[in-house]
Amino acid sequence: VYARGATDNKGQTFSHILGTQAWLKDHRDLPVNLIYLMEGEEEIGSPHLGEFLRVHAPELACDAILVSDTSMIAPGHPAIACGLRGIACVNLRVKGPSADLHSGVFGGAVPNPATELARLLAQMHNGTGRIMIPGFYDDVAAVDAVETGAWKHLPYTDDDVLKAAGSTALGGEQGFTTLERTWIRPTAEVNGITAGYQGPGSKTIIPSEASAKLSFRLVPNQNPVDIACKVAAFFASKAVPGVEVEATYDHGGNPYFASPDTPLGLAVRTAVRNVFGREAALVRGGLSIPVVSLFKEVLGRDTLLLGLGLPDCAAHSPNETFPLENLDKGIALHLSILEQFAT
Amino acid sequence: VYARGATDNKGQTFSHILGTQAWLKDHRDLPVNLIYLMEGEEEIGSPHLGEFLRVHAPELACDAILVSDTSMIAPGHPAIACGLRGIACVNLRVKGPSADLHSGVFGGAVPNPATELARLLAQMHNGTGRIMIPGFYDDVAAVDAVETGAWKHLPYTDDDVLKAAGSTALGGEQGFTTLERTWIRPTAEVNGITAGYQGPGSKTIIPSEASAKLSFRLVPNQNPVDIACKVAAFFASKAVPGVEVEATYDHGGNPYFASPDTPLGLAVRTAVRNVFGREAALVRGGLSIPVVSLFKEVLGRDTLLLGLGLPDCAAHSPNETFPLENLDKGIALHLSILEQFAT
Repeated sequence: VYARGATDNKGQTFSHILGTQAWLKDHRDLPVNLIYLMEGEEEIGSPHLGEFLRVHAPELACDAILVSDTSMIAPGHPAIACGLRGIACVNLRVKGPSADLHSGVFGGAVPNPATELARLLAQMHNGTGRIMIPGFYDDVAAVDAVETGAWKHLPYTDDDVLKAAGSTALGGEQGFTTLERTWIRPTAEVNGITAGYQGPGSKTIIPSEASAKLSFRLVPNQNPVDIACKVAAFFASKAVPGVEVEATYDHGGNPYFASPDTPLGLAVRTAVRNVFGREAALVRGGLSIPVVSLFKEVLGRDTLLLGLGLPDCAAHSPNETFPLENLDKGIALHLSILEQFAT
Repeated sequence: VYARGATDNKGQTFSHILGTQAWLKDHRDLPVNLIYLMEGEEEIGSPHLGEFLRVHAPELACDAILVSDTSMIAPGHPAIACGLRGIACVNLRVKGPSADLHSGVFGGAVPNPATELARLLAQMHNGTGRIMIPGFYDDVAAVDAVETGAWKHLPYTDDDVLKAAGSTALGGEQGFTTLERTWIRPTAEVNGITAGYQGPGSKTIIPSEASAKLSFRLVPNQNPVDIACKVAAFFASKAVPGVEVEATYDHGGNPYFASPDTPLGLAVRTAVRNVFGREAALVRGGLSIPVVSLFKEVLGRDTLLLGLGLPDCAAHSPNETFPLENLDKGIALHLSILEQFAT
């Protein structure tokens, strides 16, 4: 069981910890050995976890890995995420004049880094939402139509997405459903932009530089370093004279796919039937949990991603939540999973 | 004589004040009445100066107005700016989801306000640097070829502009010289952009909103409010579903043109010949000094713009400067102007 920093994830993980405690109140011992692994660097790409896993591999040897950091498909309907998107984080910097310039004296004479940054970002997608970085889609694996077909029966509508997002319209790549766009299609998102004057009123300058934080969600079999190189080459090719364009790779994680038909997967699916009275939904996740690739690489084990949070938990946003009801159900589910292993 | 807040401008203005003091050391009285008007709100559009001028119009009644807030054409070569560009400052805001969203969970599903802002800004110009806002150039007055032709003989090269700007290449609207682009062509500049996460490392969000500070330098006979309306209509027409686009007028000032052949202009030009041994260059200024339109409107007098600063004074930038040598020469010039009026 692996816990990281977010509120929603902490709630999910605590339900497993409390489930273990609850089991030990009624039993002398656990039916299986459990190792709890806690780490606080997941949001910056887990730079030290790989070394930790390698050093402690003998103590961490295990048959299966469980991570609860994903979502139910709807309240009361847990889901197993068979896949996750990977991520490549890239910082883009456009450098122009050696200092901020008076936009009256120099406006019209020299390129404006803020304008050039906007032009670069605007060229990332075409009018249909397709990403225009050469080679970006080269390694995207085809997805079985049986898997995507089953998603049509999930209790999940575009209206739910709009409501959870607080948005008035959907967007993104044309030709794919909303679930496909978030689960099996890669993205290019602008996470932040910084340029020139940002205080109250106005300051009439041509900023010396402008920068953007970008993240690319990746799907099997895209590679974050490869994508970061393609991104950097794309922006370099679009730079106009008078500005210097630099795209640097910040961190990344591989996309992931694992079967839900392992012994742990089958135990969890039975437990979901027992506690929730329904089948666990077999889904994918749009987010990235780079550590699951590390677990696979160092410990040689796939990770079962059991989602106990709610789709509207406001992850990475103000007022992130995990309902107490989900905590209670999570404890019961954990007890039922241990029960499966005991029998 | 009118003084405002910038270092360069203060230096220029002090040379007039010290010139007046120097005259009074050697003479009983001034040959003409002088009124010094000081104001500290020019950079925010002088919101209170109009009322002040109206209330005090009788005390401020004058034959001519002198402002030194522009540049020499080169060290030791003062210039009279016969025209100035106006300005329209506009704040652009793109509002999307009700809060920042997790870019893994929602990336690909909803429009990203930072990306949409970049697309809006990228559409302001076409590939030749022409501004694509409908009607933007409608009121641009033709400029006499005699005036622009004389600029070819100014001691001023593109290399000087590159050096003063600290830029490696020039940019802007094709088909015009650098002086024309900064003196008699309007511009659309991005002064600042704010969106999403701007701290160290990365934060994988779809920002709830993104905004930009824009300023448009205007030439005769463009009107700042008219331009702001055209800008707002342009951006509104480009908004995609799921984002709300709002462009608000912050402040502005009219473009300006005045003849250098007034009594004050002729006195100044004689004084320049006496002190600097050369003709004052007759130029325009790319910057905006909105108060000159106010002076004209309320006091009914044109303003002579006598430039005593240097082109590389770093106006609106760190380490803005005014050389002491220019202060000394400015004092001598002011004495010579008073001499003209005395005789």
